[in-house]
Amino acid sequence: MPDTGTVKEIAAAAKADSFLLAALDAGTRDGALKAIAAALAENSAAIIAANEADLKDAVDQNLPGPIVKRLKFDAGKLADVIAGIEDLIRLPDPIGRRLSRRQLDKGLVLEQVTCPIGVIGVIFESRPDALVQIASLCLKSGNCAVLKGGSEAKKTNKALYDVIYAAGLASGLPAGFLSLLETRDEISALLTCHESIDLIIPRGSNEFVRYIMDHSDIPVMGHSDGICHVYVDAAADIEKAVPIIRDSKTQYAAACNAVETVLVHEAVSEKLLRPLEEELSAKGVLIRGCPLTMNILAGVRPADESAFRTEYLDFIVNIKVVKDLDEAIDHINRYGSHHTDSIITEDKAAAEKFMQRVDSAGVYQNCSTRFADGFRYGLGAEVGISTGKLHARGPVGLEGLQTYKYRLYGSGQIVEDYAEGRSTFHFQEL
Amino acid sequence: MPDTGTVKEIAAAAKADSFLLAALDAGTRDGALKAIAAALAENSAAIIAANEADLKDAVDQNLPGPIVKRLKFDAGKLADVIAGIEDLIRLPDPIGRRLSRRQLDKGLVLEQVTCPIGVIGVIFESRPDALVQIASLCLKSGNCAVLKGGSEAKKTNKALYDVIYAAGLASGLPAGFLSLLETRDEISALLTCHESIDLIIPRGSNEFVRYIMDHSDIPVMGHSDGICHVYVDAAADIEKAVPIIRDSKTQYAAACNAVETVLVHEAVSEKLLRPLEEELSAKGVLIRGCPLTMNILAGVRPADESAFRTEYLDFIVNIKVVKDLDEAIDHINRYGSHHTDSIITEDKAAAEKFMQRVDSAGVYQNCSTRFADGFRYGLGAEVGISTGKLHARGPVGLEGLQTYKYRLYGSGQIVEDYAEGRSTFHFQEL
Repeated sequence: MPDTGTVKEIAAAAKADSFLLAALDAGTRDGALKAIAAALAENSAAIIAANEADLKDAVDQNLPGPIVKRLKFDAGKLADVIAGIEDLIRLPDPIGRRLSRRQLDKGLVLEQVTCPIGVIGVIFESRPDALVQIASLCLKSGNCAVLKGGSEAKKTNKALYDVIYAAGLASGLPAGFLSLLETRDEISALLTCHESIDLIIPRGSNEFVRYIMDHSDIPVMGHSDGICHVYVDAAADIEKAVPIIRDSKTQYAAACNAVETVLVHEAVSEKLLRPLEEELSAKGVLIRGCPLTMNILAGVRPADESAFRTEYLDFIVNIKVVKDLDEAIDHINRYGSHHTDSIITEDKAAAEKFMQRVDSAGVYQNCSTRFADGFRYGLGAEVGISTGKLHARGPVGLEGLQTYKYRLYGSGQIVEDYAEGRSTFHFQEL
Repeated sequence: MPDTGTVKEIAAAAKADSFLLAALDAGTRDGALKAIAAALAENSAAIIAANEADLKDAVDQNLPGPIVKRLKFDAGKLADVIAGIEDLIRLPDPIGRRLSRRQLDKGLVLEQVTCPIGVIGVIFESRPDALVQIASLCLKSGNCAVLKGGSEAKKTNKALYDVIYAAGLASGLPAGFLSLLETRDEISALLTCHESIDLIIPRGSNEFVRYIMDHSDIPVMGHSDGICHVYVDAAADIEKAVPIIRDSKTQYAAACNAVETVLVHEAVSEKLLRPLEEELSAKGVLIRGCPLTMNILAGVRPADESAFRTEYLDFIVNIKVVKDLDEAIDHINRYGSHHTDSIITEDKAAAEKFMQRVDSAGVYQNCSTRFADGFRYGLGAEVGISTGKLHARGPVGLEGLQTYKYRLYGSGQIVEDYAEGRSTFHFQEL
């Protein structure tokens, strides 16, 4: 890496090399991934030692328990990321996929072909496994990456980066394929590199992601809020509804795809709410409810307007009784964050209506919102989850790291001939 | 339309109705397009009278000739836009196209399905045909549209809008399917409606587009500069090169896809430059050249760094001699605007290298850059041309007005079972 130099120089070097990386064949990129996996295994002792040093610093600095937990990168985590790279190698090459091919006229053929986006800037939180996942996804998809990890994981990130970088370089990748920024003030410099960086992917707290979105003219892909819903329809199977809601709330409450509000059709509220309360209370979940919910469940605290707009990321859930499917859909489109919403119903028509009208990246029937994840979608892994509607939506894997270009193959054609009627277009899909 | 009310209310009404429009079947949307085409034909006298009033105002106000020319909307133009709607009706429905389908596990199926983006705000220049094209593209693609046309065409736009709106409403479209803003200060209000407007498409001068991009937190699709190149390779057929360059420069010099800089391999510079100068001079094109060009062509003015970054939109072209294909590619990626660039060569390997490494929405071989256009690409029509790399790239038609959502059909699955090893994923493409 251009590991000396300003952020602008690092980004410009990545840009220049992005054209070379994009032009490498799949064999070279997959070969580099194999070499990286092997190098990570060989250097496990140094990586784990670096992580132990980070862990010691975290404990010395009295960092909160959950941060220390996420920071831990042991032999098991290393084996996981190596297995992830091996999975990625087996996925088909996303570059050069022909999306369409059309003859415009004799000897004039238009092709729409996928290609890498260019240079991706990724700013991520404390988990060091993110560095390996992001670096390998960007490499497989032919994009240069400029990374900035959390300061708590500084030593682990540097150790992982050094191993990946050396193995990649030895495999014939261009020098700018991967760069690591190491100080916090480099983030604001990165946000101004719109000539070199094509896309920023921030991964972190809501406030952090919103800060990035507000402070860059570079396109940003990701999500700030994750306000997800489960709607229990009149035709729901209550036996399915209760465990799905429990899982959506408690399987990992701090995740963006955890449920924050449960909507319940009035026809099943009496039947559902008591067993649901029992299940959730056993897990330590605090319920906030609408007036109708409070009529059924004594001792529940009220959920007001602001509650419905809150991403708790905690063992708290809102419950609201609605009079029909339409009210549920309206509520989700108004208060949700267009992330992931699930309907529990055995009624196929209700499910279709929900899936069509709910304006979210993921619309589910009869399963937990926690499935919104690149690995669970079979995408290999993800660089992030997008709630934007342009470009990639939902979990973003290899496909979301591609754009396309139009290639037009002619044999001397000029527009004047078509404008003046000497030639006419003969469109034909090939 | 909510034709009274603030811009915020108009946008919110469009948002609410966007879910209804998106849910209409293709027959209803195509039926509305048919009714709109018929209504435009029936009301031709009123539309043309409104245009004559606009033309009279334009002449009274001494507006420049080219503006008056673009403003004209006569029986021929009306027939063209009606034919355009009929073409659009024949195109397949872009909504609900299944992009992928994957079983994650038994009874857990993930589908990636196209759906409309939602509400599109389009701000366009004086040509009234743009209003009809944009309105019909948005309708076919299931998007509500909020339009703001140029003030010179105010009466024509209102007449066209009234006819289209009434015909659409009578065909069962929701009231918010199409709105027209009529005053200039409504543009800045529109740019703040990020809760209701999903995408802004500006069509106009560079300064105008850049203003919109800088003043909205809503995603903007389009392009400001169009700095396009033709590169004449060592293996070029000079007989093709000269007319292609003439066409790329002069067929419509004010278009974004007109060429601004011609790059010439040194091996063919002696052979190409003199006939090229003859052809271009005959059309009144002024040449600015690099030192090597000036050695061959006496009397050419110098092209400096800033010339290579200028979009002339006029009968001026830069010519630069390069030593090889690599220098040409580097020049294009450095000075170009990632719009459309063409290589003239009979060497297949050179063409492939150019097409892969040039970082533009359109990369051509042996044809004019002027082909970069939605109609010429067979897309039906275009709402604009995008030089952004995220989402749609190049001319944007129906496909670019779609996003997708993931639908996950389950039968009670929860993530806990997978996290704790009681279930495992069995990915299978369906």
